[in-house]
Amino acid sequence: MAAANLEKQMAFLVEIDKLKTIQRKAKIMHGDRLENDAEHSWHLAMMALILQQEANADVDLLKVMKMLLVHDIVEIDAGDTFAYDTKGHEDKQERETRAAKRIFGLLPEEQERELFGLWLEFEAKETAEARFASSLDRLQPLIHNHHNEGDSWQRYKITEEMVRNRNREIAKGSEGLWSYAQEIIGRSVEKGFLRKSYEDVLEEEQDGS
Amino acid sequence: MAAANLEKQMAFLVEIDKLKTIQRKAKIMHGDRLENDAEHSWHLAMMALILQQEANADVDLLKVMKMLLVHDIVEIDAGDTFAYDTKGHEDKQERETRAAKRIFGLLPEEQERELFGLWLEFEAKETAEARFASSLDRLQPLIHNHHNEGDSWQRYKITEEMVRNRNREIAKGSEGLWSYAQEIIGRSVEKGFLRKSYEDVLEEEQDGS
Repeated sequence: MAAANLEKQMAFLVEIDKLKTIQRKAKIMHGDRLENDAEHSWHLAMMALILQQEANADVDLLKVMKMLLVHDIVEIDAGDTFAYDTKGHEDKQERETRAAKRIFGLLPEEQERELFGLWLEFEAKETAEARFASSLDRLQPLIHNHHNEGDSWQRYKITEEMVRNRNREIAKGSEGLWSYAQEIIGRSVEKGFLRKSYEDVLEEEQDGS
Repeated sequence: MAAANLEKQMAFLVEIDKLKTIQRKAKIMHGDRLENDAEHSWHLAMMALILQQEANADVDLLKVMKMLLVHDIVEIDAGDTFAYDTKGHEDKQERETRAAKRIFGLLPEEQERELFGLWLEFEAKETAEARFASSLDRLQPLIHNHHNEGDSWQRYKITEEMVRNRNREIAKGSEGLWSYAQEIIGRSVEKGFLRKSYEDVLEEEQDGS
């Protein structure tokens, strides 16, 4: 039984190596290439460790970390859905649920239940841990863009209003980090990394053409 | 005070993004490029989550995970020292201690102490948590090589004896995982991914030339 479990666990650990090949939309901060989901997940777990005092409620750090390490694994099958891709979000849940069943299903039953549960809890954003984890997941790309002079904001024509609307939810997990995020957004607009409105984006395109 | 702390924490979180640019010697399992330290650290934290029952002693999983997330950060300054690089290991400790002081020193004092402590504990391999974490850190490249048909073993002319000597320590953290590692080594030799001896390596080179 123990040996059969170990084979299943190893098959899962080999399978999730694929997370290293799933590209996100933002570049790493110190290099000219897109970030992948595995290194993103590591960075988020480090953010949880360092910023836990910023959570609105007392959180179980181990649970927050587990959630963050696991939350993107479904993207091995379902791919990365860009935060501002409205169409992609229509069938996101269905695609990701199918992926969760297949990938967590590689594990022994008890662990399958635990990881599936962690992923569902993260997605539902109802517990203090899920809210804080989700706040970190939203904050991280802001920091990336601020350091990359708004690289993916520019590429995808994202405006200040879109960024504020999308990230307002950070406050649900951490009022402190939402204040910080607003500072970053403000500084990014000042420096020209982020356009105030869609009209500004169009105007800039005409000037450039 | 809180705001000053947050500035320091953010400076640290931006700095450690560089871990995504530190290349290891083994390739990822599902792709033709070297693995980086950040995704390696994520994979190890996942291994801790999934394989915790394999530890020889009861371990505090949160501590194991923190150690694994943090253990390679010193390589931002000190670089990755290959497991089989005897010369590189001579001044490894000195280079890495200097790096730990600089990088963890970006944090508020209390967190600097915690992370420096976690790194020292991992390096000393004296606690149950450090031993188990270290076992996972040694096992992971074996799994990579087994899946990559011995890619870095071949490139660096590593023999079965070297792999067995280097990895025997896995048993200190987990007898179960050392048994598993020995199986993998055996299968790798059978399949020709790993040479039995240095004489075999030389012979193969002559045949090939």
